[in-house]
Amino acid sequence: MNSYEKFHLSCQANQSLLCVGLDTDINKMPSIFSKDLKGMLEFNKTIIESTSDLVCSYKMNFAFYEQYGTEGFEILKKTFELIPNNIFTIADAKRGDIGNTTECYAKSVYDYFRADSVTASPYMGFDSISPFMKYKDKMVFLLALTSNNGSQDFQRLQCEGKPLFKQVIEKSAKEYSYENLGFVIGATHPDELKEVRDMIPNNPLLIPGVGTQGGDAKAVLAANSGGNAMINVSRAVIYPQGEGKFADLVRVQAEYFKTLLSI
Amino acid sequence: MNSYEKFHLSCQANQSLLCVGLDTDINKMPSIFSKDLKGMLEFNKTIIESTSDLVCSYKMNFAFYEQYGTEGFEILKKTFELIPNNIFTIADAKRGDIGNTTECYAKSVYDYFRADSVTASPYMGFDSISPFMKYKDKMVFLLALTSNNGSQDFQRLQCEGKPLFKQVIEKSAKEYSYENLGFVIGATHPDELKEVRDMIPNNPLLIPGVGTQGGDAKAVLAANSGGNAMINVSRAVIYPQGEGKFADLVRVQAEYFKTLLSI
Repeated sequence: MNSYEKFHLSCQANQSLLCVGLDTDINKMPSIFSKDLKGMLEFNKTIIESTSDLVCSYKMNFAFYEQYGTEGFEILKKTFELIPNNIFTIADAKRGDIGNTTECYAKSVYDYFRADSVTASPYMGFDSISPFMKYKDKMVFLLALTSNNGSQDFQRLQCEGKPLFKQVIEKSAKEYSYENLGFVIGATHPDELKEVRDMIPNNPLLIPGVGTQGGDAKAVLAANSGGNAMINVSRAVIYPQGEGKFADLVRVQAEYFKTLLSI
Repeated sequence: MNSYEKFHLSCQANQSLLCVGLDTDINKMPSIFSKDLKGMLEFNKTIIESTSDLVCSYKMNFAFYEQYGTEGFEILKKTFELIPNNIFTIADAKRGDIGNTTECYAKSVYDYFRADSVTASPYMGFDSISPFMKYKDKMVFLLALTSNNGSQDFQRLQCEGKPLFKQVIEKSAKEYSYENLGFVIGATHPDELKEVRDMIPNNPLLIPGVGTQGGDAKAVLAANSGGNAMINVSRAVIYPQGEGKFADLVRVQAEYFKTLLSI
């Protein structure tokens, strides 16, 4: 089974488009967890056990683990191992470098962490992405129009007749099979999301920015027009407000977003 | 002492512009080193001990260590610790993400690995770079025109009157102080290097691509016009050809490039 098939099956299995991002911040964890790396792993375990029948995927944001160096990398590895095999995983590492270097990054995310997919930056061009693509059973989500305000600084520059992010999408979609190539389009840009969906009806999209970042779930769903997509929510699920057992509060949030994203 | 001062002092101390890249590949190490992570660290130690009076900096390419996961990250940490304090260090990690995530990457490269500088991708815009910049005593080398063939795919697109890489340089140089902001310009593009040097006379440059990648050292020096720069050579120094003691062969290569780059 390649990752494209797994992408579909994972969405179908739980009838969900919800991707939960494990952007785990020790300082935001509730007090039932120890404020250390052991607590970080327990926190992740609790979230995975509370939500794995509600999500299509988990997105592991490498930075949150790398800040703790070697020991953080070990927690990242152990968290990947806690994710059930039928759930799609995204190594949100935003890597990209010259060819022989990207080969090493591919070994890291695909062979060592055994992720189904990776997020990658297009800036260095196709020879910086192709080593990821050589893993035919894996998938790359290329940054196109990201959810942050900074997306306006370069991604929206008019480049030879269209904004840079559309150049990235158009040229990359010609270069690679849609079965391996997805794009990151922020939920904070529903108008452009619709335009992108019209440009590339088949490529999977990873859509972050619903929840804390302010993306409107209904607008995203309308713009996506039923295309292949996973919609990421991180902070709004993993740091629930209110009183009660943490695992239950997380589940309530995940159910809320699963339902919101299923219309 | 901030990193800009250290950048200068490091070049002056050894009268050298040579940055050696520790892109260590277990399969390319000579047979005196065991083909494992212990051997990888010994290999790095030998290179640092053989060259630390000849170089201005060491560039640590994170990918080559990350491919071995947790244990590789530990070798990366230990290698950083082997580098003498007066030698400038570059975390060649090419990171970049939304603000709260780049904060974590900054903690990783600056606080954990204690690097003097990091390479970063501009694609996600200024709010993805600023958390690195908040460390006033550190430096960022932003990808502008990279040494690989793929640099033509997006970096050379004409964007609102100039190629994308010049937009990156111009807008970023307005946004940040030159004391914190350097750029990566590949040695394989001497004509553009000259144009860039005219645009930004004060910002430090990291110039990779001399040696195995084919950049011409003399053309690079002429184009750089004596500006602040470190010129990276990786494979041509750390995998020397010929017969003899490995440490000596490495030293000969480093001396060759130091001299070549001192004209």
